[in-house]
Amino acid sequence: MSKIDYEELMKPVIGFLGCETPQAWLDEAVENLDILMQDHANCEKKAASTAMNLMFRYSFFSDLQIKLAQLVREEMLHYEQVLEFMAKRGQEWTAISAGRYAGGLRKEVRTYEPEALIDILVIGAFVEARSCERFYALAPRVDDELGRYYRYLLKSESRHYEDYLALAMDVATTSKLKNPKEDIQMRIAHIREIEKALISSPDELFRFHSGVPAKAV
Amino acid sequence: MSKIDYEELMKPVIGFLGCETPQAWLDEAVENLDILMQDHANCEKKAASTAMNLMFRYSFFSDLQIKLAQLVREEMLHYEQVLEFMAKRGQEWTAISAGRYAGGLRKEVRTYEPEALIDILVIGAFVEARSCERFYALAPRVDDELGRYYRYLLKSESRHYEDYLALAMDVATTSKLKNPKEDIQMRIAHIREIEKALISSPDELFRFHSGVPAKAV
Repeated sequence: MSKIDYEELMKPVIGFLGCETPQAWLDEAVENLDILMQDHANCEKKAASTAMNLMFRYSFFSDLQIKLAQLVREEMLHYEQVLEFMAKRGQEWTAISAGRYAGGLRKEVRTYEPEALIDILVIGAFVEARSCERFYALAPRVDDELGRYYRYLLKSESRHYEDYLALAMDVATTSKLKNPKEDIQMRIAHIREIEKALISSPDELFRFHSGVPAKAV
Repeated sequence: MSKIDYEELMKPVIGFLGCETPQAWLDEAVENLDILMQDHANCEKKAASTAMNLMFRYSFFSDLQIKLAQLVREEMLHYEQVLEFMAKRGQEWTAISAGRYAGGLRKEVRTYEPEALIDILVIGAFVEARSCERFYALAPRVDDELGRYYRYLLKSESRHYEDYLALAMDVATTSKLKNPKEDIQMRIAHIREIEKALISSPDELFRFHSGVPAKAV
């Protein structure tokens, strides 16, 4: 894939997000590749687990089952790949806490159905879109081998972002919501603001999805 | 693969189990393929979920992580395949309760580590071995298409059985157990008896891993 294709691929993703990753986070990331790598591994595992939880919670929804099962498989493969990268580079597995990002987004999930499911799927789309955007921004800033891997990953993440969004639309339109399209657009706009705030406000803890490094503010 | 190869493949699996599937269960199965199919789908999803839970519980154990991640991917793929089979045959997803089998085995898990992990892995080996043995016994009794699929599946199940057993051995030998080999052989013998009882005693509910149909007793 040429550079121009990547730019094309990124356009809808960057257009979907409320802001681009701040320069200060990128500067911090290249200085903390070991934390980034360990947190990335954790994120892949958690993404698989989130998708699997949805599969149990919404067993009856068969389109969702197949799409999520494929997603679980892909996130698990990435998890294996990141562990292999770590092993190859002599990086030992270490226990690190989760950042504020996923929890901050989760707080926004409405407590009734089908709105709860729609919100979880919209949040899924944002997490995947943000991961995609960060891999794109990181790729030219890390070593060639890791850069190539990040470019390979961002293609999957951009598909996952589309899948989550399509599932959210699907749930909204097949549900009994009065104005499914308006409802979902409103939720996308709302989650976009929350996500933007998490990415662009000071954050004490450096992680894959953290905000602006507090010391840089 | 020729018939002789399958017999070779099955030898260690059948040798590992305490008994073969009773004829009465097989007779019931061919009369209840829809329940069998739905429960099979549920079992694949639960197998993936069990493996993923182990991944979160034992994050620090890196060999386990890779093996279990691969297992999750394979169980998810099978889940997708069974759902596709159901769709193709016009079978709708229905909510059915779980059988007594997994719960009956789980009761045997010791409550302290590393014994708890060893027990879960040994149980995993038995569940995979039993699934393998049932697919082998079912294959010639169902239609050609499904029979081919069951033969394809039993190859994976026999690998999973070996993987779980190898992981159990691995955990036992790298732990601080005084006599790891004796301990694990003792547990295999114990779980074998429990599993055999679940398979060969009367069972009210027909499921993929159920016992002898109560009405046949």
